[in-house]
Amino acid sequence: MGTYGAVKTQSSEEISDLPSSVLLSNTYHLYLRPGTEILAKTDGLHSFMNWDGTILTDSGGFQIFSLEGYRKVTEDGVIFRSHLDGSEHRFTPEKIVDIQRIIGSDFMMMLDVCPPGDADYQSWVDALRITTNWAKRSMKHFKETEPLYGHEQVLIPVVQGGTDKKLRKQSTAELCELEANAYAIGGLAVGESKLKMLETVEWMDEFLPKEKPRYLMGVGTPADLVRSVARGIDMFDCVLPTRNARNGQLFTFDGKINIRNSKYKSDFSYIDENGISPMSAVYTKAYLHHLFKTKEILGYRIATQNNLRFYVYLMKTMQEEIQNGNFKTWAKEFLVRYSNSLF
Amino acid sequence: MGTYGAVKTQSSEEISDLPSSVLLSNTYHLYLRPGTEILAKTDGLHSFMNWDGTILTDSGGFQIFSLEGYRKVTEDGVIFRSHLDGSEHRFTPEKIVDIQRIIGSDFMMMLDVCPPGDADYQSWVDALRITTNWAKRSMKHFKETEPLYGHEQVLIPVVQGGTDKKLRKQSTAELCELEANAYAIGGLAVGESKLKMLETVEWMDEFLPKEKPRYLMGVGTPADLVRSVARGIDMFDCVLPTRNARNGQLFTFDGKINIRNSKYKSDFSYIDENGISPMSAVYTKAYLHHLFKTKEILGYRIATQNNLRFYVYLMKTMQEEIQNGNFKTWAKEFLVRYSNSLF
Repeated sequence: MGTYGAVKTQSSEEISDLPSSVLLSNTYHLYLRPGTEILAKTDGLHSFMNWDGTILTDSGGFQIFSLEGYRKVTEDGVIFRSHLDGSEHRFTPEKIVDIQRIIGSDFMMMLDVCPPGDADYQSWVDALRITTNWAKRSMKHFKETEPLYGHEQVLIPVVQGGTDKKLRKQSTAELCELEANAYAIGGLAVGESKLKMLETVEWMDEFLPKEKPRYLMGVGTPADLVRSVARGIDMFDCVLPTRNARNGQLFTFDGKINIRNSKYKSDFSYIDENGISPMSAVYTKAYLHHLFKTKEILGYRIATQNNLRFYVYLMKTMQEEIQNGNFKTWAKEFLVRYSNSLF
Repeated sequence: MGTYGAVKTQSSEEISDLPSSVLLSNTYHLYLRPGTEILAKTDGLHSFMNWDGTILTDSGGFQIFSLEGYRKVTEDGVIFRSHLDGSEHRFTPEKIVDIQRIIGSDFMMMLDVCPPGDADYQSWVDALRITTNWAKRSMKHFKETEPLYGHEQVLIPVVQGGTDKKLRKQSTAELCELEANAYAIGGLAVGESKLKMLETVEWMDEFLPKEKPRYLMGVGTPADLVRSVARGIDMFDCVLPTRNARNGQLFTFDGKINIRNSKYKSDFSYIDENGISPMSAVYTKAYLHHLFKTKEILGYRIATQNNLRFYVYLMKTMQEEIQNGNFKTWAKEFLVRYSNSLF
């Protein structure tokens, strides 16, 4: 998760050895700062941030719908005012493709309408209709344009439909006509119950083509990841590893701990002796507690590295367990240990 | 400069390859957080922060005299209230030695009285008298106690006397009777003019024993360092490299630049192509400008590394130029290029 073209606290060198991970950056934020002019001048985000790994950019839709401020959705696109200076901007599906061409992300997302968690059935229907319409325009424009920096780009549509089975089926069918290389599931993890979310993911497993990668947007906790992989998901994005790190929350196989808790003041055991994160293997919990109490930036770095490595290790482990045919047994054991909860 | 046992934004691994540098930490801050109980339990600061390089701790005197809040100096010691919670603490010269034994620093500083920059002659006289008295008690107590963790510790007295030649001579003579391994010059860089400061450093060069290292406390800018080395100083401590970094100020051989300046928005040259700092050789000024504008922690890290490496490179270069017999020529060229100023 690298909102502004930087993974919070981490250098490009530090994230370069996270296997099979993708850096997510936000089209909306990059469009405002540094802006497309700067990105075009430096041949895109890879070059700008000195990163030759894979980059995915979201469409900006989620920010437009979740950030406070004026916005208006029409059949043509979205008009919104910047959260920074109040300036007015118009996004169309085509413009979102153009911006991502300039960013040069490897995975581009189509502009979609993402209704909030408390939306009603009619909002889901409307969001689905506009999303399909925009997806067709996005794909058309994508095919009419070329990558700017000599590497391939992939454009991914976003399935909507709330937590309604019929709508999800309809959205999937309409988007599958575009024959995209991968499919994203949007409109989940926006406030609905975990059971509703997992039920919807199960339907998606049924509706989506088996041979194409599925990306569940905005999910989630380690337990969410395990349960969603069990339901056919291949890819996630989530702010939890980096955001929680900055609040002192660390992910471990025994669950989440908060290093600010006074019980860690004199706990001189290493943060994590498993060696998943290099820093967590050489610094103690007592030292990290001290760094958080004194607001030292090094503390945020150690915690961020710990959580990013934990998530990547978790994904890699699941991949291996699936290949070994042992996933279900492993997943049950993981969930009992991690959160004393069921598969 | 590592106030709380961490060099701002940097990991112990990153600072481990800064040649001939010493980590300075603050006795006063460590005494309050994490406290001596924690430090004793983990065999001192080296172990606590995973750092096997050299550590110097100040005496806490400077913080006691510079931080706001109640304090009272008696012939016996200092009474002060914590800037954190208002709790009352008493520091004596002996207690300061004991605390630094627990911290386990390689270089320990004696408690001294450091008058503010606007102090009058009588304050300098009083500070000198008490400092000498405390220095005798410090050395006595030092000799009566042992290091706690099996490595040698050195105790350093602090010369006072304001910017008065006679007082500086007297303070030096009194402290030299203690036959310490090194001598620090305190009470400078507290608000007096640069000319007064350099004049005083010149007197100190005359008064201090030639064969023992001299440490000029709290100095300074790159130009200050060059001019002070020319006047016989071996060692410095200063917050500028790390503090300025967090404000976006970078040290370069062509002077100080502020990366937040809008002219860097589309400057795609590397921060420093000389390779002094690994990060400055791979990230551009435009990217660093963007990181500061978006308040990304990575920006503070890049700037901090740039400035620390610049300072260490500067000290190393001076050492080499002295060995080559070329110091004066080099210093003149450096000062003209750095600040268009005189030697």
